[in-house]
Amino acid sequence: MTRILGIDPGSQRTGIGLVDVDASGKSTYVHCQALNLLLDTDDFPARLGKLVFDLEDILAEWKPTVVAIESVFMAKSATSALKLGHARGAAIATVVRHGLPVHEYAPRQIKQSLVGTGAADKDQVQHMVRLLLSLPEKKLQADAADALAVALTHAHTSATAGRTGLAAALLRRRR
Amino acid sequence: MTRILGIDPGSQRTGIGLVDVDASGKSTYVHCQALNLLLDTDDFPARLGKLVFDLEDILAEWKPTVVAIESVFMAKSATSALKLGHARGAAIATVVRHGLPVHEYAPRQIKQSLVGTGAADKDQVQHMVRLLLSLPEKKLQADAADALAVALTHAHTSATAGRTGLAAALLRRRR
Repeated sequence: MTRILGIDPGSQRTGIGLVDVDASGKSTYVHCQALNLLLDTDDFPARLGKLVFDLEDILAEWKPTVVAIESVFMAKSATSALKLGHARGAAIATVVRHGLPVHEYAPRQIKQSLVGTGAADKDQVQHMVRLLLSLPEKKLQADAADALAVALTHAHTSATAGRTGLAAALLRRRR
Repeated sequence: MTRILGIDPGSQRTGIGLVDVDASGKSTYVHCQALNLLLDTDDFPARLGKLVFDLEDILAEWKPTVVAIESVFMAKSATSALKLGHARGAAIATVVRHGLPVHEYAPRQIKQSLVGTGAADKDQVQHMVRLLLSLPEKKLQADAADALAVALTHAHTSATAGRTGLAAALLRRRR
């Protein structure tokens, strides 16, 4: 069994989502949360340090075997790119240091994998996350939902999941 | 005695410079080098991981007590800002994880501290780094020189150095 840690980094909050995937490709919800980061505040190194320690607590508690993270190669402005880069850099550094393999997925790839079109909106992605993980209708925290989405994308595309794909996963759920 | 690790992060190379400063504020050269990073290559997480492990080797070998890093809040483009942010984020995460305090200095502050004007050019900064640390005339690797410059800025401005300032440091050197 593979336990996937999905990470959605941001300068305000970093979303965390954990999903188990078995040999048949079936995904099970494990945990999700949002870590407050607030890189807009004064003590920038201390804020990044907090992310490192929070992430290490999560690695120790939930023991993921692989990490999936949204790739970002463009941003609104240089200032926001710099902040987002710091958060992603600190998160990747922390999980790589723990010897975990890291896989990157582009936003379009995540939407394509979960909804079937790269142009899907946030609500559609959230809806599919809830459906695939049998979560209640209650609204998921947005960053945590995005983290679960990238974890599910890895589950559906990775070789460890037997390359079953979304269609097969849905089919199994309906039986 | 304080051992300052200066870090100058970049997406191609990260400069490393170590300086000892004693109670009187006198700075002594310890070590400098440039770590190749090449974040333009394919395996982005692996490259960031290499930076983490290289930095951890440096922390283990040279045992700095404090870290000084150039603050960057603007960049040429969002793409370069994102890459630079990743390198800085990974570096800061690594040293904070080791329990080291991190101090940030703006580029103008570094130039002001070493040359006496925030508008100084790279060559003037290099010249003062060599002068203050009694290094031979041989050209320093640019990133390593910038790392030594931020370490010296911390030496000259930190309370641990007795707030002696550059003038006093130069005066002592001339006696």
